[in-house]
Amino acid sequence: MTKTSVAIVGASGYAGEELLRLLLRHPAAELTAATSRQYAGQAVGAVFPRYRECQLPFINPDAEQIAGRAEVAFLALPHGLAAEYAVPLLARGVKVIDISADFRLRDTEVYARYYKTSHPAPELLSRAVYGLPERYADAIRTADLIACPGCYPTSVILPVAALLHAKLVETTGIEAISLSGVTGAGRKVDLPYLFPECNESIRPYAVTGHRHLPEIEQELAVAAGVPANAIVINFVPHLLPVNRGILSTILLQARPGTTAETAVECLRAAYDGKPFVRILNPGELADTKHVTMTNMCEIGCAFDARTGRLIVSSAIDNLTKGASGQAVQCLNLSMGLPEDAGLN
Amino acid sequence: MTKTSVAIVGASGYAGEELLRLLLRHPAAELTAATSRQYAGQAVGAVFPRYRECQLPFINPDAEQIAGRAEVAFLALPHGLAAEYAVPLLARGVKVIDISADFRLRDTEVYARYYKTSHPAPELLSRAVYGLPERYADAIRTADLIACPGCYPTSVILPVAALLHAKLVETTGIEAISLSGVTGAGRKVDLPYLFPECNESIRPYAVTGHRHLPEIEQELAVAAGVPANAIVINFVPHLLPVNRGILSTILLQARPGTTAETAVECLRAAYDGKPFVRILNPGELADTKHVTMTNMCEIGCAFDARTGRLIVSSAIDNLTKGASGQAVQCLNLSMGLPEDAGLN
Amino acid sequence: MTKTSVAIVGASGYAGEELLRLLLRHPAAELTAATSRQYAGQAVGAVFPRYRECQLPFINPDAEQIAGRAEVAFLALPHGLAAEYAVPLLARGVKVIDISADFRLRDTEVYARYYKTSHPAPELLSRAVYGLPERYADAIRTADLIACPGCYPTSVILPVAALLHAKLVETTGIEAISLSGVTGAGRKVDLPYLFPECNESIRPYAVTGHRHLPEIEQELAVAAGVPANAIVINFVPHLLPVNRGILSTILLQARPGTTAETAVECLRAAYDGKPFVRILNPGELADTKHVTMTNMCEIGCAFDARTGRLIVSSAIDNLTKGASGQAVQCLNLSMGLPEDAGLN
Amino acid sequence: MTKTSVAIVGASGYAGEELLRLLLRHPAAELTAATSRQYAGQAVGAVFPRYRECQLPFINPDAEQIAGRAEVAFLALPHGLAAEYAVPLLARGVKVIDISADFRLRDTEVYARYYKTSHPAPELLSRAVYGLPERYADAIRTADLIACPGCYPTSVILPVAALLHAKLVETTGIEAISLSGVTGAGRKVDLPYLFPECNESIRPYAVTGHRHLPEIEQELAVAAGVPANAIVINFVPHLLPVNRGILSTILLQARPGTTAETAVECLRAAYDGKPFVRILNPGELADTKHVTMTNMCEIGCAFDARTGRLIVSSAIDNLTKGASGQAVQCLNLSMGLPEDAGLN
Repeated sequence: MTKTSVAIVGASGYAGEELLRLLLRHPAAELTAATSRQYAGQAVGAVFPRYRECQLPFINPDAEQIAGRAEVAFLALPHGLAAEYAVPLLARGVKVIDISADFRLRDTEVYARYYKTSHPAPELLSRAVYGLPERYADAIRTADLIACPGCYPTSVILPVAALLHAKLVETTGIEAISLSGVTGAGRKVDLPYLFPECNESIRPYAVTGHRHLPEIEQELAVAAGVPANAIVINFVPHLLPVNRGILSTILLQARPGTTAETAVECLRAAYDGKPFVRILNPGELADTKHVTMTNMCEIGCAFDARTGRLIVSSAIDNLTKGASGQAVQCLNLSMGLPEDAGLN
Repeated sequence: MTKTSVAIVGASGYAGEELLRLLLRHPAAELTAATSRQYAGQAVGAVFPRYRECQLPFINPDAEQIAGRAEVAFLALPHGLAAEYAVPLLARGVKVIDISADFRLRDTEVYARYYKTSHPAPELLSRAVYGLPERYADAIRTADLIACPGCYPTSVILPVAALLHAKLVETTGIEAISLSGVTGAGRKVDLPYLFPECNESIRPYAVTGHRHLPEIEQELAVAAGVPANAIVINFVPHLLPVNRGILSTILLQARPGTTAETAVECLRAAYDGKPFVRILNPGELADTKHVTMTNMCEIGCAFDARTGRLIVSSAIDNLTKGASGQAVQCLNLSMGLPEDAGLN
Repeated sequence: MTKTSVAIVGASGYAGEELLRLLLRHPAAELTAATSRQYAGQAVGAVFPRYRECQLPFINPDAEQIAGRAEVAFLALPHGLAAEYAVPLLARGVKVIDISADFRLRDTEVYARYYKTSHPAPELLSRAVYGLPERYADAIRTADLIACPGCYPTSVILPVAALLHAKLVETTGIEAISLSGVTGAGRKVDLPYLFPECNESIRPYAVTGHRHLPEIEQELAVAAGVPANAIVINFVPHLLPVNRGILSTILLQARPGTTAETAVECLRAAYDGKPFVRILNPGELADTKHVTMTNMCEIGCAFDARTGRLIVSSAIDNLTKGASGQAVQCLNLSMGLPEDAGLN
Repeated sequence: MTKTSVAIVGASGYAGEELLRLLLRHPAAELTAATSRQYAGQAVGAVFPRYRECQLPFINPDAEQIAGRAEVAFLALPHGLAAEYAVPLLARGVKVIDISADFRLRDTEVYARYYKTSHPAPELLSRAVYGLPERYADAIRTADLIACPGCYPTSVILPVAALLHAKLVETTGIEAISLSGVTGAGRKVDLPYLFPECNESIRPYAVTGHRHLPEIEQELAVAAGVPANAIVINFVPHLLPVNRGILSTILLQARPGTTAETAVECLRAAYDGKPFVRILNPGELADTKHVTMTNMCEIGCAFDARTGRLIVSSAIDNLTKGASGQAVQCLNLSMGLPEDAGLN
């Protein structure tokens, strides 16, 4: 079998390193380029002893070079910068799977408001597909620009979109409290992420206006079949002392007749046959330790009859299903492979 | 100065050990008895090397013996069992500061519903004072039976009661999402609390019907000046891999005019002069690492104008302000000492 | 391809669960039985949500039943008990790969001294092969009773045996200081392994006479070509707050001419072509985070010219290369498969 | 009582913050200045919410200013820089308690070799006293320049110096394997100290030639009564995922007749009446969780009759007894206060 040649642009951050882990063992992809300004010239295996066997040298990021080596490029870059590479790569016929935020939002005004800068490549937005395979598989199969969801949004959208679509919950009163491990902050050499600043610490941050908020609202509106901006939620992220994992606890207003049982039934129907969604029994709750180092999203439902709130817990590995694993899942769809190739 | 003689009944759990830490260095209390069935006969210092210097032997719990040695008894026992000691100790004139749940709830039916057993000593309930010094200082000063709040309730009631009392937030739509370290489960030798089961794990539990729920509702109703049972909340606890600390993120429906600024102002006024409440500036958020190993409750407020939700974060050390520190604070009030004696 | 049918006897401990993880995705093995007294009757996937998809029910351990279902049985049982199953399984023609300590030691007197009980099946010892594939591959290929090394011994023997064999270091003055994560203690519901007892704690234990000591001495004597009992070492284990991983720091007396460079060269030659030994460059040191969730042993060497000590650091995942991964590596050899089948 | 005015020079690192914690509650010291280039102008309490009540503003470090405000200055600065402040402060009559390495080593050549720079103020060395109160209390009482030991050296010197002095162990074959929490690296914003790089990682570093090595050798030679440089040891540090704590496991060659019992007896005699040394019973081993947040050094001894090695384990809190607590202990001696003032 001929393997598809793939490049990782921005391979030295945590999402980039997770792409290395997944692509180096992928049965149908061959890693032909990995970029890192910081490590250019050094072999991947010299920088990451875990992949010591990989002799491929890091190169400086350059669209021309990447296009000469790869059919598909994964962008694991900061927002803004990702678009700078997406434009020339697409122009050269390279398929782009972007892990950054640049092509997730349909509305450039919303982008500008949350990212504090005007959109770097609005002309590409109509080509971009939101890379959540459980909801957009057909579009992902044929897209040449795939915008993978953020980590928090993945954990929230998967359960809530299905429940909204089935009209089991109201479109108002949606509150997502999310708890993330520290790799979620990226390999950012910054005081708040030092070990002693995070260990034995529990803290919320960006409790209003987090950048992942509009992405969640956009996709929930699509699922509910209501106008964009018709869904307004609270999204409250927290930073916790674990390496990997996001646990989202989502409070939803149940519509009459909704219970934990009907919610579970709805989710099971919605994700029937999907290899990376696991719906627990009614009353069971998700735990990040069931999903770390996997591409699984685990979802549990409970119902509080006293308040009418459906309480959904959803767990993913932020680097796998929340970033690089999902990107590989998109690659698989795009190549016509089984969705879980290289992901089990 | 003559010191007050104090006993710890149930001194080998985490709350009991924290009482040891605080009372062994208290300037006006002398530990004269510490009970532990498991370690009876061994010196405190032999069991807990941290207190190696303490030669006091653990004794079996016995009301007669305790009453012969101590003017005040701290009960760090499971619910149900605490009442069994409170009755004979009070009868012998010993002041009781109870860390268990036995005397927190006014309503024995509610007790029975949440604790799955009928109340063991309903005749004592009218004597019991809820041991939250920031709200019941006067009553605590003269009480002979003090029922210290649970750890979660302390973190929730302190901010929310003041905001409800000042009518800055509605009595409906109250949701407390709480994140606790593992000592909150007690020194319970049980599979889910093994290190590898907790480390690198984030998980909700008891998301409906947790035993601390009715206690929060009861005290919020008092603060709001509404009938008991008129306040119905969601309380969603989670277990996290830290030793100590609770972070509660509380979503409240702001009344017209309420902002982060007015909320902070209200809380500062409510707790002016209170040594163990720290109100952060508007927009600042609490972090457990600012309060661990202290008796402080740190509170921050943010306001989401899009949803009208006031987002309050509140951090305590679950073993100190959430249990044993608060009990010592009650002792101080009861002895006419400065509230922070032995707690700084 | 016909898959080999395999059973896990004792599948609910950490080593058993790691066998589940590895065997459920193994390309040439099919898990046909998994035993657990505690969970008998429940599906594997109901007990371990991570393997939710696995419908196989746990059964009570019974040699007859296991022999009826599996060609190979992995024993993940306490010492003593393992032998009780090995005897009847071998009698029924089942190949046994034992992770316990029962068949590692050649000398039943040494077994009795360290395990405080007489050997349960001395007649089988001559059939048993020490399951360290890097040193005994040929014997493992044909054995029907494979005694997998302990976790600590694996991390110590791999580097030291090669250096002794090449006579780069003395047979005296060998000191191994080993640091282990808490899964190394097994899924043991015991006070010292509770999260708050381990987290933020660093402690040595069993610093003389640990049960893994004689196994290390036995194998180092073989490698050095000296009589059994001719090598006497210090082995000092510690318990650390990580889930997985062992780091052994080994101090060796260099023979004249030995340096970090010659040591690295020797180790590279000794393990040339071995997929699961990674020798770092001279002066580089091992880190458990490079090997967790893999079957790799990473080894680094430094030399202190002031004292003449060669300092070797060696890292493995205690559950993978230190237990279940190594057992699967033995299975692969035994089936004539590539050594790394199902392990990458 | 008039309090002694004290300054912290370099108050925003971990050792500086620990000095804040200890001095803000010290009964006989008043913090009158705290320097931090980074935070100059901000109140201590605004930077460290834990000390929110402290209104003292950080100032830029300036010897003139400090001398105008404080009788004693604690230097919590990098080596090299500390001397730059010590010189003018001493000239202005300020007593200096230095936590850096600048005045620990007697021999400027050794300093140059290990710190890769010539000594910045050799003329002061004769005035400096090594600030280990258990060994140099008299000299500390009258010194105006106190050089507090490093964290690792404190944990190693306390047990070994006493054993060498009593001739229970040989002066050769001394090996200290030390395990440190991450605050030991300082508040250094550097990739290796990010949470995900440290958590679930165990790694040795600087296994030859660590800067704390010559300091240990110097003091052990003094204790043994042998010439400087006559003792040559192996010192092998490791970095572990805890916030605070050092555990040193030290292997020593026992002289004839030495056992765990005689070693314990010797240590108890040597440190009789010392408030911050706790000698465990023979065979008991130290655990960092017994000493964190205290100024205690806990020491345990075991003896391996097979190898003749005495195995000593020693635990301290690296920021307290290993740095700032020890500095305050020196202050107490210097002020004629009880050694443990403000430290219990």
